[in-house]
Amino acid sequence: MFYHKKQLQYFKPPEKPDAVYAKKIQELIGGTFGEMTVMMQYLFQGWNCRGPAKYRDMLLDIGTEEIGHVEMLATMIAHLLDNAPIKMQEDGAQDPIVGAVMGGTSARDVITAAAMNPQHLIVSGLGATASDSVGFPWNGRFIVASGNLLADFRSNLHAESQGRLQAVRMYEMSDDPGVKDTLSFMIARDTMHQNQWLAAIEDLQDSGLETSPVPSSFPQDLEKGEFAYQFWNHSEGTESSEGRWAKGTSMDGKGEFEYVENPQPLGPEPTPPQPDPRLHGTPQNPAANSGGDSTIRRTSIG
Amino acid sequence: MFYHKKQLQYFKPPEKPDAVYAKKIQELIGGTFGEMTVMMQYLFQGWNCRGPAKYRDMLLDIGTEEIGHVEMLATMIAHLLDNAPIKMQEDGAQDPIVGAVMGGTSARDVITAAAMNPQHLIVSGLGATASDSVGFPWNGRFIVASGNLLADFRSNLHAESQGRLQAVRMYEMSDDPGVKDTLSFMIARDTMHQNQWLAAIEDLQDSGLETSPVPSSFPQDLEKGEFAYQFWNHSEGTESSEGRWAKGTSMDGKGEFEYVENPQPLGPEPTPPQPDPRLHGTPQNPAANSGGDSTIRRTSIG
Amino acid sequence: MFYHKKQLQYFKPPEKPDAVYAKKIQELIGGTFGEMTVMMQYLFQGWNCRGPAKYRDMLLDIGTEEIGHVEMLATMIAHLLDNAPIKMQEDGAQDPIVGAVMGGTSARDVITAAAMNPQHLIVSGLGATASDSVGFPWNGRFIVASGNLLADFRSNLHAESQGRLQAVRMYEMSDDPGVKDTLSFMIARDTMHQNQWLAAIEDLQDSGLETSPVPSSFPQDLEKGEFAYQFWNHSEGTESSEGRWAKGTSMDGKGEFEYVENPQPLGPEPTPPQPDPRLHGTPQNPAANSGGDSTIRRTSIG
Amino acid sequence: MFYHKKQLQYFKPPEKPDAVYAKKIQELIGGTFGEMTVMMQYLFQGWNCRGPAKYRDMLLDIGTEEIGHVEMLATMIAHLLDNAPIKMQEDGAQDPIVGAVMGGTSARDVITAAAMNPQHLIVSGLGATASDSVGFPWNGRFIVASGNLLADFRSNLHAESQGRLQAVRMYEMSDDPGVKDTLSFMIARDTMHQNQWLAAIEDLQDSGLETSPVPSSFPQDLEKGEFAYQFWNHSEGTESSEGRWAKGTSMDGKGEFEYVENPQPLGPEPTPPQPDPRLHGTPQNPAANSGGDSTIRRTSIG
Amino acid sequence: MFYHKKQLQYFKPPEKPDAVYAKKIQELIGGTFGEMTVMMQYLFQGWNCRGPAKYRDMLLDIGTEEIGHVEMLATMIAHLLDNAPIKMQEDGAQDPIVGAVMGGTSARDVITAAAMNPQHLIVSGLGATASDSVGFPWNGRFIVASGNLLADFRSNLHAESQGRLQAVRMYEMSDDPGVKDTLSFMIARDTMHQNQWLAAIEDLQDSGLETSPVPSSFPQDLEKGEFAYQFWNHSEGTESSEGRWAKGTSMDGKGEFEYVENPQPLGPEPTPPQPDPRLHGTPQNPAANSGGDSTIRRTSIG
Amino acid sequence: MFYHKKQLQYFKPPEKPDAVYAKKIQELIGGTFGEMTVMMQYLFQGWNCRGPAKYRDMLLDIGTEEIGHVEMLATMIAHLLDNAPIKMQEDGAQDPIVGAVMGGTSARDVITAAAMNPQHLIVSGLGATASDSVGFPWNGRFIVASGNLLADFRSNLHAESQGRLQAVRMYEMSDDPGVKDTLSFMIARDTMHQNQWLAAIEDLQDSGLETSPVPSSFPQDLEKGEFAYQFWNHSEGTESSEGRWAKGTSMDGKGEFEYVENPQPLGPEPTPPQPDPRLHGTPQNPAANSGGDSTIRRTSIG
Repeated sequence: MFYHKKQLQYFKPPEKPDAVYAKKIQELIGGTFGEMTVMMQYLFQGWNCRGPAKYRDMLLDIGTEEIGHVEMLATMIAHLLDNAPIKMQEDGAQDPIVGAVMGGTSARDVITAAAMNPQHLIVSGLGATASDSVGFPWNGRFIVASGNLLADFRSNLHAESQGRLQAVRMYEMSDDPGVKDTLSFMIARDTMHQNQWLAAIEDLQDSGLETSPVPSSFPQDLEKGEFAYQFWNHSEGTESSEGRWAKGTSMDGKGEFEYVENPQPLGPEPTPPQPDPRLHGTPQNPAANSGGDSTIRRTSIG
Repeated sequence: MFYHKKQLQYFKPPEKPDAVYAKKIQELIGGTFGEMTVMMQYLFQGWNCRGPAKYRDMLLDIGTEEIGHVEMLATMIAHLLDNAPIKMQEDGAQDPIVGAVMGGTSARDVITAAAMNPQHLIVSGLGATASDSVGFPWNGRFIVASGNLLADFRSNLHAESQGRLQAVRMYEMSDDPGVKDTLSFMIARDTMHQNQWLAAIEDLQDSGLETSPVPSSFPQDLEKGEFAYQFWNHSEGTESSEGRWAKGTSMDGKGEFEYVENPQPLGPEPTPPQPDPRLHGTPQNPAANSGGDSTIRRTSIG
Repeated sequence: MFYHKKQLQYFKPPEKPDAVYAKKIQELIGGTFGEMTVMMQYLFQGWNCRGPAKYRDMLLDIGTEEIGHVEMLATMIAHLLDNAPIKMQEDGAQDPIVGAVMGGTSARDVITAAAMNPQHLIVSGLGATASDSVGFPWNGRFIVASGNLLADFRSNLHAESQGRLQAVRMYEMSDDPGVKDTLSFMIARDTMHQNQWLAAIEDLQDSGLETSPVPSSFPQDLEKGEFAYQFWNHSEGTESSEGRWAKGTSMDGKGEFEYVENPQPLGPEPTPPQPDPRLHGTPQNPAANSGGDSTIRRTSIG
Repeated sequence: MFYHKKQLQYFKPPEKPDAVYAKKIQELIGGTFGEMTVMMQYLFQGWNCRGPAKYRDMLLDIGTEEIGHVEMLATMIAHLLDNAPIKMQEDGAQDPIVGAVMGGTSARDVITAAAMNPQHLIVSGLGATASDSVGFPWNGRFIVASGNLLADFRSNLHAESQGRLQAVRMYEMSDDPGVKDTLSFMIARDTMHQNQWLAAIEDLQDSGLETSPVPSSFPQDLEKGEFAYQFWNHSEGTESSEGRWAKGTSMDGKGEFEYVENPQPLGPEPTPPQPDPRLHGTPQNPAANSGGDSTIRRTSIG
Repeated sequence: MFYHKKQLQYFKPPEKPDAVYAKKIQELIGGTFGEMTVMMQYLFQGWNCRGPAKYRDMLLDIGTEEIGHVEMLATMIAHLLDNAPIKMQEDGAQDPIVGAVMGGTSARDVITAAAMNPQHLIVSGLGATASDSVGFPWNGRFIVASGNLLADFRSNLHAESQGRLQAVRMYEMSDDPGVKDTLSFMIARDTMHQNQWLAAIEDLQDSGLETSPVPSSFPQDLEKGEFAYQFWNHSEGTESSEGRWAKGTSMDGKGEFEYVENPQPLGPEPTPPQPDPRLHGTPQNPAANSGGDSTIRRTSIG
Repeated sequence: MFYHKKQLQYFKPPEKPDAVYAKKIQELIGGTFGEMTVMMQYLFQGWNCRGPAKYRDMLLDIGTEEIGHVEMLATMIAHLLDNAPIKMQEDGAQDPIVGAVMGGTSARDVITAAAMNPQHLIVSGLGATASDSVGFPWNGRFIVASGNLLADFRSNLHAESQGRLQAVRMYEMSDDPGVKDTLSFMIARDTMHQNQWLAAIEDLQDSGLETSPVPSSFPQDLEKGEFAYQFWNHSEGTESSEGRWAKGTSMDGKGEFEYVENPQPLGPEPTPPQPDPRLHGTPQNPAANSGGDSTIRRTSIG
């Protein structure tokens, strides 16, 4: 069960509105790696967790924190959309560009009115939406909660890596002190969260519950071991042989990397079976497909 | 530019068809972590790669291999759908369940006809589709190619973890020797690919191009360092203090983990600005929203 | 900012697992009118609210409660998926249906294994997912937060009506005392929430902030008033004249309903303009579309 | 069965084209509350209606009217896209902005070419699309037809509220007399349709077929009545106690509102069961997950 | 503007309900090539048509007919869902399968309850939905209206081919005389519509408005003609040389087919440029990415 | 199994970057008829093909070629995004528009920064994405592989028609010699591919495997032949009688077109059955819906 405090975890308002920046920063709310993703991902992982209590508690702690991050960004977007120009040309204004040159101030407004997210005007009335920076809605396929904690912690590490990368890019794309201050808090939390998942991975592996390759509880003698440590070079040229993945002991310590320079198919040519003529696909020869329900029925009965 | 050989990378056909299993194994083709995902993800990462040639080549090698994995699974699904029952009750059959008991053999067919993916009959004519196990289509938001290789390699490691987990689950859900043999090859390749991404991460970090926290080229003095290594306990109870993430040197070696047991908000209550009355949102008091174009026009003109 | 308590708002576990029912009850988590919808809808409405504090606080209170409803249902699904049959036929079992008749107990398991949501096995490892009962993911277009509180409260009233209807249907579809007990709590909360939105609508209208037709701040003399209270009968037969909407004073008290039995078009036939020949659409006569960049360039330059 | 007349229900063409406005007004065609939504929602509700004939007829009448509203907007968009600039800089033109200042006229065209919906050029050849203002396609989850008419009429009231709000916002965002005239007709129809659904709700409740809480045919003694009229305050502060929903007789007349200032969980901590080791989730202790098909098979057989 | 008659274009009710068949036949309503697709596709093509009046009128005629096809199928689904089993086991029933053998009649109901579309119970109350046979919603990307009539008529021919194929498959999957009778009408209409689009293609080409290759108004001397009639053999083996596409005069009569047995790349290796360090992608060498806003600012200013 | 060569099939880099054009040309990668569609469509058709080897081989040849087309466009987008302006106003710049007039050069950059696809900056770091020109992701419902080759070849012909039309429109929208050169190669390939599918259709029909109407293996005496060649005029006015589809021998040679000027319904008014009261829909009269589990149980038991 959940509770709310009215204050934000952290916040400095933008000094100036910027509706185009508001469109872009929607990526951090509703994008594939936005705050809605980490919020819902950690909550579902926590709710689905069957492992030790410390993992479940930790997952729900951070998931609960992330709800507040959506809240911070929604508030920031409200400020960024303040005074958004709702028309490309306001009444009484001159030709916008000439007007700008002649001393008017609305040129930036014309561009903003044209390029801002129209749904910020029409749909949400200058509020944040549950969408990314191109207006595509957040959806449940963005999250993962598999029940296997190492698989999921790797996802979390990844999400925080993309998340921090995107927050940093938004930071670089702004000159507003308020925006930059708030983002510098969120970037710091992303630093923690990358460290947290690296630590959780170490903790989980130390606990003996899971290790590489995931899932480690699957007996490796059931897989085709001869192909389990080979790199297949599917292209002309061998630049790909120069990496750590092409030679030496494998990272799980259970094999030796091998570089297969000219890989050849091991399987046969496919020969998919001929389907039921009642589905009227194209068979290998015309006679095979004398279809139709009545015909078929006659054939199949007697 | 790409080329094709007609033989499959590896393949054993199923011994018996099983249309319900065909529905389920679609997850490995078109699911969030299916072969279409890794195929498209590695190809786009390769095409977008601006780093050293060995990474680009390696990405395109593995991406090209994965096209062949979709091919293997599509072939398997064609075999699994062979002789799929197209009706819940075929002509001339008795009551299906009683018939089964009385010596008939169609009871499993009745259940299969009811539960199989209808699109395997109606849409694809017993062929594989570009969808997951519930028929939801694969889509481009399943992949990531950010330009930052460490962020992306972490994604790849994660994808191969979920991918191997799902392939193992499908292996456990089958008794068919052909299916199990083919999957044991794919699981082995997933073992390699998890190792490959762990190796690529090490290789990339050793190269000095990137490290934790991602992106490492962002100067950490620009983030709010005091919050960069704190775990915030957003719940009653402190089980979450028991993990590696709550104490000791941080994983990036740049800080000390700190456990904040009773975290308090640092920010103010939000006070979003009042929006333009022409958008007809609900203001704080009735007088504020005397809207309407004519009114506004009068006001704004003079 | 948000906090979590480990206990659930309310909960009785199911007495028996039922994986098919687990598939169905996903509708109440991730369906169009599931708990994720009301949770995110109320939170976004609260964060976007510019009206009096009591509305904002109320919206965030109920939004915070709804997070806990997702939590309750996720927990219920974990119980319902306990012991889910992962194969259509377990090792050592006889022909499933005959086996059932002969004293075996697995017939229901065969049906369950065929019909349950495959992603509950393959993707989530017997945990809840952020999807509806057919596996379609929850998405951000399910919610609305327009900034106009009367429009939004009507949405909320509607969502709670569909939500209670669906919860009641799930209640009727179960015989499990635990499931029914938990649902009877959720249905009671839906009763409250329908009443709450009816009350909020009255409260808001009494405050003078908004009334019918929404948005009431738009001057009605700007709309074509002669069509604002007419019912147009677009079909043969006049059964539609028998309702309250066809006669009498309009509900907003500002007009008289009028029934237009044989409505006729008021506008002209459309005459869309001919598009740019460089887009190579089909024009009204062949000569018009002598396209191609070089031609165009020649024409437009000299 | 349906018929078509070539004239539009109502229409004034725009005086001037405006491709950016065309992008925005797509919201009224293919947005969540656009004309495609009400058209398909009313038609499906009519087709699914099992209630008295007057409701079915009325639903199909208004659904049929709404097809014509899509037609009107599609025609308007064709006019708005007339002469759309297909390049950011036409041949022979000077630097666009400088050109504008120097007497050229293309500055607005440069901005328009950059900001208009690219699919209006590339995909539809200057015609309307079945998408919203950010290009996201209309989809079937936007509509509801539940079989319960009160639930659905509340949805319809809501859709017409959002629809009129959005049409009004588009009206405010334009200075074009043709656009404003056509919208003032559509806004008037929305006024009628809000009134119509308010009337239909009253009519339906008067008929004794349905009332609050929906569905009223569910016996309320089956729900946990003690929680059916409580407002739970999930936050610090009690502003939410100031509304109509916190005290007095409930709106359905069946209870008394009660304000619960410090709500506490009524349920236990969740204890989800340990899943099947063959799914290779993370268990509470390492020994539990000795998985793998062969192991399992051995165990489960004997 | 549109009108409605209450009778259906054609209809025979099913003799017996069949909820699983109802799930499947949703494909013909809301699938990629269902009636919603052709309805919306023809209407949008008609509304966007700038060509001769006969095409526009014809498009709107058939689009209007198709609205009635959705109506017919929605009615059929209502009948097929009659008496749908809402529980897997009704009160008082014995173990379902054993019960069946012992003389009970509910075995088919158990299977149906497990396999039917849950949303037909929970969401639509036994009515049709705007989704396909796996519950995926119809969406606006299913349709095309490009402004080029030959391109679009080819789409229409294709849609009617898939549509008739799917209707035939549904016909073959049923034994119900009512279902088969109604489908035999719809299949006949599909026969007409395939013929109609073949005729429209001929008519359009005869009119001189468009021909192959589409768009024919683009001057072919602007394309690289040397590659415009070559078949590239991207695989080992030359079975693909045996078709009409590999030799002889091209179908547009403007070239000669040529079979390129060993195609080689004509382009260079890609060398994408190094991106802005402020985006923190991985560069070719570490020094290049000394990022961070303050650093950058210093560099770029002075 | 697949292989890669590092060179591109064909390529000339753009002479100048243009981030807005990069946004638009995404349509050719990830749009409904972009290269991802033809690539995946031909590969799945090839994998699912059960017809003669020459068709399967040909499908996989062209599918393999199309992978390389995605590669070419991804490379082009990387070049177009070079030096993309990451801020609307760079540090040290003056007011952007005034600055432009005063001799600055950044006006175009301001517009570009506002209008470019934000995900090209935030998500992909100046690389291509698997989305269309409005950022909507490519998805598996864009492709078709039905098993019936004539149905599918018609789809392929259509896809190449829309594809060439869109490539031509992009060609017309650019002045960059590199872009135009590369597109002129792709347009030539589209010319071939339209011809190829026209040839494949002829080849397939000549083979006797399939003809009109698709599927030709369905006996036409099972359809309602009296409606199989009628055009129904669903509107006032008879312009639609002027086309080839309204008179003469039908295109399949099996009937005579007939123009039905005043079509009337052949079916009855719908009378959908009353649903189960446990689903709490609205019945025709109040008494019918005395619902609720306990009531029902009582009724149904005794």
